[in-house]
Amino acid sequence: MVAEIVCVGTELLLGDIVNTNAQHISKELAHIGIDLYYQTVVGDNKERVWNVLDTALKRADLIIMTGGLGPTKDDLTKEVAASFFGKKLVFHEQTYEHVRKRLESYGISEMTESQKKQALVPEGALIVTNPAGLAPGIIMAQGDKAIVMLPGPPKEMKAVLSECCHLFINRLSDQVFVSINIKCKGPDELPLKEIGEAPVADLLGDILDNENPTVATYAKEDGVLIRVTASGKTREEALTAMQPVVTKIAEILAGKIAWVKEEV
Amino acid sequence: MVAEIVCVGTELLLGDIVNTNAQHISKELAHIGIDLYYQTVVGDNKERVWNVLDTALKRADLIIMTGGLGPTKDDLTKEVAASFFGKKLVFHEQTYEHVRKRLESYGISEMTESQKKQALVPEGALIVTNPAGLAPGIIMAQGDKAIVMLPGPPKEMKAVLSECCHLFINRLSDQVFVSINIKCKGPDELPLKEIGEAPVADLLGDILDNENPTVATYAKEDGVLIRVTASGKTREEALTAMQPVVTKIAEILAGKIAWVKEEV
Repeated sequence: MVAEIVCVGTELLLGDIVNTNAQHISKELAHIGIDLYYQTVVGDNKERVWNVLDTALKRADLIIMTGGLGPTKDDLTKEVAASFFGKKLVFHEQTYEHVRKRLESYGISEMTESQKKQALVPEGALIVTNPAGLAPGIIMAQGDKAIVMLPGPPKEMKAVLSECCHLFINRLSDQVFVSINIKCKGPDELPLKEIGEAPVADLLGDILDNENPTVATYAKEDGVLIRVTASGKTREEALTAMQPVVTKIAEILAGKIAWVKEEV
Repeated sequence: MVAEIVCVGTELLLGDIVNTNAQHISKELAHIGIDLYYQTVVGDNKERVWNVLDTALKRADLIIMTGGLGPTKDDLTKEVAASFFGKKLVFHEQTYEHVRKRLESYGISEMTESQKKQALVPEGALIVTNPAGLAPGIIMAQGDKAIVMLPGPPKEMKAVLSECCHLFINRLSDQVFVSINIKCKGPDELPLKEIGEAPVADLLGDILDNENPTVATYAKEDGVLIRVTASGKTREEALTAMQPVVTKIAEILAGKIAWVKEEV
């Protein structure tokens, strides 16, 4: 199972906001063992969203989209995704009622035309009510491909993802991933950041080519991090696969570089 | 001039870090009026970095890459970019001296093999010394296409970008962009967040189709934002293009929705 994240929003391309959605979804996918090879950000432009979706569906099975589900003309994620799977947008009574009630609770009794648009969803899609806002989550599946659409505002995205989309995505994976961070510490006379990634990588040698667990080094502003990531059918299986490599790293670093281990 | 951002790093795909680099570069590009249609994140994998670069160069003139310039085996950005333009990696004396001196200042007198790799750069490339770290910035140009490579750690990326790459990128643009945020305020009895994007968009109507300046609405956690963005050959020209539309928005909102204006 390979996933890909597509974030739709011109505000991301203008640098007005940082893409915390991509990080949150990536972390969730890593935890449940779904591979992710690409994240793409595209603006509110029909042709470009279509092209990105086309590329994504050629190289991944599950596309998770965020943004572009709002009520305005430049919100076009569901229109593009629907037409991609040859579906029309149809009226969804439950979503209409959800939007109406939510607006009513704000003291707004009359819906605008744009607000009514929130109740249009691709025919045949699974609809996940948004507990934190108006735009629902939408799950479309066709053959062995699926598109999950989540609202853009981070609070709503997280709420819809954990509500129900999570269950759907979880079922697609039969793997669990576990990571351990090994944070290298410099000798007392050197600040952490000055140990450097290269000497640590040189010490680790061939371990960096290992497959399960994978081992990677990262230069951080406060030092060097070694990340060991194992996968398995259960958390225990992943931890068992990880153990011999962590022990080997500890042996290699012993007496040369001090370190601390953190499970993540 | 159309640019595209490609961030290389498996840690971004695992959700270990949030992609602040993409935001910073996007903002810089917007300020100097270079269009950006896509941001892509790809892991430390040679084939996939190649594919992303191939796609990016087909739809953009300037590719700004971050990450993958470090000393370890999984750092492969410069190798891929060099081979893409049919160039070899060659030894760069000045970078070698920079790395040697910087390590010496940390009290490290002997370079590892991995550290020496930092001094290999694509032949014919412009090299920008990194004032905050080891890996230099690299600018490659061929025909009307250019690739700018920046180190991944945000402090180093910013330092190299503002050092010299900025000058190079600035020269590619003859446009300046200016944005104004109009933050809508609800009536006293309603919290800001409950005004809703839809009624604001409905009021604005056709103004949302305007081209210069563009006008867009955004649902924020504390309310609704209208962003007006104008371009021109100078900041004054952009502000002049913006003025009539801002005045029209003020007239439309008058008496219906309170608002404050912020230049950005």
